[in-house]
Amino acid sequence: MSISATPWYQAPAASLAAAAEQTARERQSVLTKPPGSLGTLEQLAVRFAAFQGRARPELDRIRICVFAGDHGVVAEGISAFPQAVTTEMIRNFAAGGAAVSVLARANDAELEVMDLGSAVAPGPLPGVVDRRIDAGTANFRHGPAMTPEQRDLALDGGREAAQRAADAGTQLFIGGEMGIGNTTAATAVVCALTGEAPTALAGPGTGLDDSGVRHKAAVVAEALDTHAPDAADPADVLRQVGGFEVAALAGSFIACAQAGIPVLVDGFITTAAALVAVRLNPSVWPWLLFGHRSAEPGHAAALAALDADPLLDLGMRLGEGSGAAVAIPLLRQALSLHNGMATFDEAAIPGGAP
Amino acid sequence: MSISATPWYQAPAASLAAAAEQTARERQSVLTKPPGSLGTLEQLAVRFAAFQGRARPELDRIRICVFAGDHGVVAEGISAFPQAVTTEMIRNFAAGGAAVSVLARANDAELEVMDLGSAVAPGPLPGVVDRRIDAGTANFRHGPAMTPEQRDLALDGGREAAQRAADAGTQLFIGGEMGIGNTTAATAVVCALTGEAPTALAGPGTGLDDSGVRHKAAVVAEALDTHAPDAADPADVLRQVGGFEVAALAGSFIACAQAGIPVLVDGFITTAAALVAVRLNPSVWPWLLFGHRSAEPGHAAALAALDADPLLDLGMRLGEGSGAAVAIPLLRQALSLHNGMATFDEAAIPGGAP
Repeated sequence: MSISATPWYQAPAASLAAAAEQTARERQSVLTKPPGSLGTLEQLAVRFAAFQGRARPELDRIRICVFAGDHGVVAEGISAFPQAVTTEMIRNFAAGGAAVSVLARANDAELEVMDLGSAVAPGPLPGVVDRRIDAGTANFRHGPAMTPEQRDLALDGGREAAQRAADAGTQLFIGGEMGIGNTTAATAVVCALTGEAPTALAGPGTGLDDSGVRHKAAVVAEALDTHAPDAADPADVLRQVGGFEVAALAGSFIACAQAGIPVLVDGFITTAAALVAVRLNPSVWPWLLFGHRSAEPGHAAALAALDADPLLDLGMRLGEGSGAAVAIPLLRQALSLHNGMATFDEAAIPGGAP
Repeated sequence: MSISATPWYQAPAASLAAAAEQTARERQSVLTKPPGSLGTLEQLAVRFAAFQGRARPELDRIRICVFAGDHGVVAEGISAFPQAVTTEMIRNFAAGGAAVSVLARANDAELEVMDLGSAVAPGPLPGVVDRRIDAGTANFRHGPAMTPEQRDLALDGGREAAQRAADAGTQLFIGGEMGIGNTTAATAVVCALTGEAPTALAGPGTGLDDSGVRHKAAVVAEALDTHAPDAADPADVLRQVGGFEVAALAGSFIACAQAGIPVLVDGFITTAAALVAVRLNPSVWPWLLFGHRSAEPGHAAALAALDADPLLDLGMRLGEGSGAAVAIPLLRQALSLHNGMATFDEAAIPGGAP
């Protein structure tokens, strides 16, 4: 690739199917219910028609990919858990005991884990793809989290996961993440891209107390002062204060949109990655759905920056893709209603009256 | 039954199992996640432990019962659809083409329909129980909607449905409703029980425009002036401005609580019925879960009167039990997580740290 070539992540997303979307919208208007009375479920069915190019869309094959990586900034004491937990949770995903493992089974979704660089290498594990870049990012309080080459490797890891999903005929992609310290990185990324203050966005993550949250905000503020990241250069924001798993998520979302696979975004970290993705490539946006509103305070700002209104608000703040996974049945029920309800004609009810 | 005997609907609800609840709460604290990070899903699992008296509750057998009835007040022009649609929708439920039919299938729930008194008798239909009291209620603008005997028959119909559910081993009961004009009756009931103004609660129902909504509020206000119902006598409120299906819903909720079956309440009409149930018998309250927040404006007041915070907010306003049915997978996923996740010990992760 020549130096001046456009990077893969700036190639346009797939087009939406306007004709199927319109046919689906017309079908919604003749199903046996007052117009609009299924609310968001109607809109979801119409969007899936646009995604799939058919007026009766289906949602059988779902893939959840959890991207894992550690964060050098943990040295600043910004997390309630030690870095070793990232690796232990990778083992827990592989063993089927984590929340997202349970939810993948419950929703008949495939689960893949990609290790981009946990501090402690877990060794070979079933269902875990080894794409280790380093034993965690560098501490971004003192310097960039990654080199440009490391960032590109992480973006490529996400692209690879999306391509594997496309090869498997995936109809919905959920990106999850695991990485002790990654709410700190996500806070820095969202602050850099939106101009919000770290004190407004920093939250408890896995369980900081008030003074811990203040310290976390101060570390982020100091890092942003040091790097002065340029919101107009999201790839560089990623390099300076992001994380391997955040970059991989962004890459996966972009590559899914390019392959015509809708993405169901999870919580704070994945929404930060979605914001990076959309800033890198605005054509990605129509392919994003949002699963839930996290209790982590920075999520609201990230959602607002994406003009996103999530499906669920259950006070969840676990990550792993869990909030998005919990929303899967809403999508499936939206499509069941769309495909399975009788029309007024079929039910011999006077014509969509009034 | 002697005149002074306590009616069945005032007998106490079943007790919650405090020991199982505590064991479930302790289990949540050692699952591989930060404490509280599954939000409402954790609380749901603990509540089901209390409902079922076992620390690992299950949710296999779910029953949806749709109560149907017509409303004399439709003569005042307060609905966008004619009364005949109530009967046509009963046929649609039986034929499997209605939204709640589709959702019952999608969630592996049993569906029963009870006709308490549609204007046009549908004749025998599979899955439809005939408990017709009359061809709809009387027009409550001019007199009471029901006689005391009719109200008691409707309450008894709900009790019968709950008993059939208990006999079938039902672990969750959803009450749905169908009745053209029943948002008007529900508005009158909620106004009578809460003191809210009809102009604040009346909404479009199946599709009134602004002037239709103003007319509907005026009809309700006139009826409340005429009857001057006493909020301290909810059974009489039901008789004066309720509906057959509203009374049956209230009866079913009370009988479910007495039988130890939790209820997942749907939208505006069912929440009005839940409010009647709790005012008749406050011990019912702990057995109620709330599925969704309806777009119908009166729902917020009914929920507030019950101190209820529903699981979903998807802009639905269909009734039939549809909003509650859509929330079923949230309950099932809450229990799957509770029962299926590894503990910190099992995953060999340093003990629930920190």
